[in-house]
Amino acid sequence: MERLTIVKVGGKVVEEKESLDQLLNHFSQIRGKRILVHGGGRLATSLAEKLGIETLMVEGRRITDEATLEVVTMVYAGLVNKSIIAGLQARGCNSVGLTGADLNVIRAVKRPVKTIDYGYVGDIMGVNTSELRLLLNEEVVPVMAPITHDGKGQLLNTNADTIAADLAIELSNYYTVNLFYCFEKKGVLLNPKDEDSVISELSLDRFKELQTEGIISEGMIPKLDNGFSAMRNGVNQVLITNPNLISMARGTRLSLKD
Amino acid sequence: MERLTIVKVGGKVVEEKESLDQLLNHFSQIRGKRILVHGGGRLATSLAEKLGIETLMVEGRRITDEATLEVVTMVYAGLVNKSIIAGLQARGCNSVGLTGADLNVIRAVKRPVKTIDYGYVGDIMGVNTSELRLLLNEEVVPVMAPITHDGKGQLLNTNADTIAADLAIELSNYYTVNLFYCFEKKGVLLNPKDEDSVISELSLDRFKELQTEGIISEGMIPKLDNGFSAMRNGVNQVLITNPNLISMARGTRLSLKD
Repeated sequence: MERLTIVKVGGKVVEEKESLDQLLNHFSQIRGKRILVHGGGRLATSLAEKLGIETLMVEGRRITDEATLEVVTMVYAGLVNKSIIAGLQARGCNSVGLTGADLNVIRAVKRPVKTIDYGYVGDIMGVNTSELRLLLNEEVVPVMAPITHDGKGQLLNTNADTIAADLAIELSNYYTVNLFYCFEKKGVLLNPKDEDSVISELSLDRFKELQTEGIISEGMIPKLDNGFSAMRNGVNQVLITNPNLISMARGTRLSLKD
Repeated sequence: MERLTIVKVGGKVVEEKESLDQLLNHFSQIRGKRILVHGGGRLATSLAEKLGIETLMVEGRRITDEATLEVVTMVYAGLVNKSIIAGLQARGCNSVGLTGADLNVIRAVKRPVKTIDYGYVGDIMGVNTSELRLLLNEEVVPVMAPITHDGKGQLLNTNADTIAADLAIELSNYYTVNLFYCFEKKGVLLNPKDEDSVISELSLDRFKELQTEGIISEGMIPKLDNGFSAMRNGVNQVLITNPNLISMARGTRLSLKD
């Protein structure tokens, strides 16, 4: 099968023009078919603040009321997504910005309320790649913002790591998919204070150990959960890395071996 | 040639959920291939106000500094565009939201400064419809936000009426294009105080007369200039009308006859 590279990028990388430009330089040099999935970092929080909308986070997840949904739709699908598209076009990389509502790519359901009401947050129900593959065949690069819909007219704020993993899993039926989770660090660190303490290969068992020991924590846990889910469901390769290291395929490689 | 309907909608119609819903009901019932082009009405002005960004208008055109460009990108390409997409998907109408940067559909140039510096406002240089036609062939409805790019990474605020006309002209090479400019009124009014004084057919000569007499003024002039430009350049039919009247093809029909 043909190779497809999916790059997920978030955090500080998308927040600043300089780091975003660097990412786009690296991304546009990847050969073959590509998809970029982005978050919005703290840009949404910053706009919400300016508008006097309170940001509530529970376990690293944003509580999304109606006003917050408008903010994330504006920031993720508008500002960040279209800045990336303009930047890629300038690099000769024909691209199209999409949410999960566009082309009905990702259908989700509003997260059921158990102990916490997350508001307009979507849990992915299905991924439809028919038009996406049509665009990939035309050498177009889809750029996905972390917004989905419920098919009944409601947009939903959805975790970008999960979108990247679910797209990678579904597209593994058609391509050999390599999935790169990119962020500020060079990979998963054994010692958060030592930028060079990158774990080069991480098995599921080792991940559970490091989680128990508190060495892997916070935002890295859902990212790795998503990464291992992708590995178990047909994705060829998952790497946690920095945009600068994509071309060398260096970073933390997930492994299903013990 | 196959028929293509292009509907441009702006003003109050997109500002309120109820009128937008009505528009989407009418739009989703149009048969055959369709494109929707939208403005953002005063939603951008309202967000700018909340953010303490001053809105400067000269002859009905928004002066677009960097902060204003961010606002219109968020409102037009984010909030308005994605609300429309979610609404169309809910009506079984598979659609994709685009700016002129996406798929490189519309390349523009930052308007040269003569007497007025409009800032990041784009004058359209070229329309590329290859991927657009691919999507139309798949029964996908493109929904265009009034933002373009210069191909060098710069997004540009661009008049939605002009985008609709230029798309209609270019696509007339492939389809029989009917272009509907939709707004609150039932058409071009002979007496602004009488909602039923719709001019049913308007020739270029009559338009010039009514303009001289001051009967047609303000925002209607660039809309009609765009409409007549479309008629002169191969577009089959141009109608100025209300969303409710699309199916009956009623309103003000532009004519090239004297």
